[in-house]
Amino acid sequence: MSSSDIFIGEIIGTAVLILLGGGVVAAVVLKRSKAQNAGWLAITFGWGFAVMTAVYMTGTLSGAHLNPAVTVGIAIKDGDWSNVPVYFAGQLLGAMIGAVLVWIAYYGQFQAHLTDPEILSAPPHEEGMVDQKAAPKAGPVLGVFSTGPEVRNVWQNLTTEIIGTVVLVLAVLTQGLNDSGKGLGVIGALITAFVVVSIGLSLGGPTGYAINPARDLGPRIVHALLPLPNKGGSDWSYAWIPVAGPLIGGALAAGIYNLAFA
Amino acid sequence: MSSSDIFIGEIIGTAVLILLGGGVVAAVVLKRSKAQNAGWLAITFGWGFAVMTAVYMTGTLSGAHLNPAVTVGIAIKDGDWSNVPVYFAGQLLGAMIGAVLVWIAYYGQFQAHLTDPEILSAPPHEEGMVDQKAAPKAGPVLGVFSTGPEVRNVWQNLTTEIIGTVVLVLAVLTQGLNDSGKGLGVIGALITAFVVVSIGLSLGGPTGYAINPARDLGPRIVHALLPLPNKGGSDWSYAWIPVAGPLIGGALAAGIYNLAFA
Amino acid sequence: MSSSDIFIGEIIGTAVLILLGGGVVAAVVLKRSKAQNAGWLAITFGWGFAVMTAVYMTGTLSGAHLNPAVTVGIAIKDGDWSNVPVYFAGQLLGAMIGAVLVWIAYYGQFQAHLTDPEILSAPPHEEGMVDQKAAPKAGPVLGVFSTGPEVRNVWQNLTTEIIGTVVLVLAVLTQGLNDSGKGLGVIGALITAFVVVSIGLSLGGPTGYAINPARDLGPRIVHALLPLPNKGGSDWSYAWIPVAGPLIGGALAAGIYNLAFA
Amino acid sequence: MSSSDIFIGEIIGTAVLILLGGGVVAAVVLKRSKAQNAGWLAITFGWGFAVMTAVYMTGTLSGAHLNPAVTVGIAIKDGDWSNVPVYFAGQLLGAMIGAVLVWIAYYGQFQAHLTDPEILSAPPHEEGMVDQKAAPKAGPVLGVFSTGPEVRNVWQNLTTEIIGTVVLVLAVLTQGLNDSGKGLGVIGALITAFVVVSIGLSLGGPTGYAINPARDLGPRIVHALLPLPNKGGSDWSYAWIPVAGPLIGGALAAGIYNLAFA
Repeated sequence: MSSSDIFIGEIIGTAVLILLGGGVVAAVVLKRSKAQNAGWLAITFGWGFAVMTAVYMTGTLSGAHLNPAVTVGIAIKDGDWSNVPVYFAGQLLGAMIGAVLVWIAYYGQFQAHLTDPEILSAPPHEEGMVDQKAAPKAGPVLGVFSTGPEVRNVWQNLTTEIIGTVVLVLAVLTQGLNDSGKGLGVIGALITAFVVVSIGLSLGGPTGYAINPARDLGPRIVHALLPLPNKGGSDWSYAWIPVAGPLIGGALAAGIYNLAFA
Repeated sequence: MSSSDIFIGEIIGTAVLILLGGGVVAAVVLKRSKAQNAGWLAITFGWGFAVMTAVYMTGTLSGAHLNPAVTVGIAIKDGDWSNVPVYFAGQLLGAMIGAVLVWIAYYGQFQAHLTDPEILSAPPHEEGMVDQKAAPKAGPVLGVFSTGPEVRNVWQNLTTEIIGTVVLVLAVLTQGLNDSGKGLGVIGALITAFVVVSIGLSLGGPTGYAINPARDLGPRIVHALLPLPNKGGSDWSYAWIPVAGPLIGGALAAGIYNLAFA
Repeated sequence: MSSSDIFIGEIIGTAVLILLGGGVVAAVVLKRSKAQNAGWLAITFGWGFAVMTAVYMTGTLSGAHLNPAVTVGIAIKDGDWSNVPVYFAGQLLGAMIGAVLVWIAYYGQFQAHLTDPEILSAPPHEEGMVDQKAAPKAGPVLGVFSTGPEVRNVWQNLTTEIIGTVVLVLAVLTQGLNDSGKGLGVIGALITAFVVVSIGLSLGGPTGYAINPARDLGPRIVHALLPLPNKGGSDWSYAWIPVAGPLIGGALAAGIYNLAFA
Repeated sequence: MSSSDIFIGEIIGTAVLILLGGGVVAAVVLKRSKAQNAGWLAITFGWGFAVMTAVYMTGTLSGAHLNPAVTVGIAIKDGDWSNVPVYFAGQLLGAMIGAVLVWIAYYGQFQAHLTDPEILSAPPHEEGMVDQKAAPKAGPVLGVFSTGPEVRNVWQNLTTEIIGTVVLVLAVLTQGLNDSGKGLGVIGALITAFVVVSIGLSLGGPTGYAINPARDLGPRIVHALLPLPNKGGSDWSYAWIPVAGPLIGGALAAGIYNLAFA
């Protein structure tokens, strides 16, 4: 794969991932959406199929990492870091483009939601009972872009992101083991989709499962820049956790892989 | 593929698509249906599996485009427009047949729903807060046939349909890249189904994701013709958007494909 | 395939089909079940995966028809009726065994539900507004065994069963077209599962989608025989529709196949 | 497969299975989880995809039994018991590790839930109407770790676990029949996932479908040991049923396989 194919593939793939992933949150959360209140199952399947669609489209172009944690895991496993900066750049840029596309597709819903008197006068989204003093108040609109914890506790939040990412990256790394002429092909995109649904259903409860630094940081930057009325803060004090946790998790998964599977 | 195989395949395939796709909306919306209020997840999976069933049945007959936007995308990619009129004709005719079949299968439910005093006295389905002056009032029964926006805004509605169709047609066009002897086969129908579920969950909130001109126009014509009591208008002022948006999106997807993937 | 393999395969397969299919209705409907009120999506996926599990288990033994309508469709397509009686016998016997297993697995739930004072004093399940005079009152417990219409109208009910079965059997018959060395294999069981989910979501609203004479008749006989307290009638006046409709639909699908696909 | 590969594979696979399976129950049940009240469909798909992820990861390492009932079924079918103790040890150890990981990932949610005044003052989870005298009161938190019956009746509970496990193990044993060069490969993990979803939807209502002795016993031991506030009892009087039932079911499935399929 050439550097330019990797760069373009990661931009397109991560943009599609965030367009569909952020899109399902917008669909479920915002007023005047036909999918409002469609529930957690809709969100987790929405993110899973977002991964499937993006991996399926760009797998032959860039390998479809679409996630710096996957890139780090593969780099450690293969001992080859040469393309890592190109992957990272494409992923962050693609995630930002995807977040802008969500805003465009849901423009009227954002406007209706953020100027709704009922929404504006509601008390802020309440967070958990542990260490929540001085926690910034992030309303549901930030949730269309980035993740946030229900119980704000640095060590738990970081650990939950690490655990979720270990499951994801270990599933990606072991995929090669299954592909010995047994017809993996595009099935890999489907399996990966359901692994992501699984992590969402099972480990998404505490922090909203970023498990991907680009997925969280790119849209958070876009949230800070977009001219949304009454949008509230971008919760920057939390922003390092969904970056650091997944990177640690990706590295840890590669270590487990090298110890137990290689 | 002969022209007659294409014509028959597209008629059968699009009829099955609309029978099952319109059917799930009827099932969820109409009174006296066991599935009433089954929710958005049921609708999106229903449409996705409708696509899967139709593609699986008619793939070997006509290639199973079942969608003028797909036909346009493939024509641009291949530079071959010779069969396009046959595809279009089969798709529109099939969509109309499918919509009539929905009416037959749910005949008693339509009658019960449209003569229910509670439904008749209810205020009309309220649309959004942007540009909604003079918007026609379309009740849920039109929704069994055609799409409509929650917030009526020409530019947003058109853009949302374009974005959704780009995702769909790009996924269809890149399918060929994955099929290099790796056992794609019928998996393609399954992947396409989940791509459609994904678009529904993630981009269906604002306009109900037509992403297919035949899917919207054919049933809308049938809605205008059927002898349904108290059926309300067919919202013709909106009808051009789910035709134009998907056609533009299909062309745009082919352009992206030719630039980035070919 | 030998006659004894066909007979044993159809017994086991149809028993598993009804155990899991009737089971999901029991799970959702009966009191003291963890799944009570899990909804229509649970029922449709439950039936779909029931088909998948049964087809997957017994495909190599009997071809896994598990449905007289499928047997009729294949017999017409192939012009070979020699094994049809063996298939029919295995299917009906298997369906009855499956229904007894549901009763055993949910024994305590049936007892709790059918002796609950609140349930006993509730008004009977109300049917639709068309032709419902003199309709027998069938409570939800019969629904664990057999299907029934929401709007009781012979012609609509029969037609809806015919339409649903045409979709099912046409999907089964066209499966062979997709299997030209492209790695169908066990994927067929999965596709068939989702076709059944699709029919359930989209065409199940009016009659509960028997689309299989054995699936409806076998458990109805068991319902009539089992010593369930306060079980109500077995609605025999309706029983011919989910037998005749699917058989007509299976024959019609074979006709369409021979005309358009062969 | 070497004994050490089996041991390590079963530890990792069963740990992932319980992390994701127990995780989805924690996500749905505990306060301050984003997935609270996501419903039975979320739980059954969560457990199904947990199996898929774990089987997919460790299939090439240990064969991914992850369940003593599967190990017993395969041992009877193959007449080879030599590795059974290694499988059992890895499965129980893995299940305990998985349960501890759930506690870590949901630490703040457990704390919030178990110290919530509303939860503490609520009446205990009420069980069924048959034989429920003297039944221990187990609140929902035990349900994150182990299964329990809705109607406490030894013979029904045991039988339901046997029936569910027969379906599971028979599906696993017949998988080999489908794998004659037709491209099973990783599809097996997906089919198995949906078999587990099917059992959950259809047979999970009465007892919560342990269908795996390690899945139930390992986490129950961890529940007894963890320093959770107000955690209630571990319901040891029920603990033998989800061990004995699945083991009987696994043996029965092997018997049916040898009689009807071999």
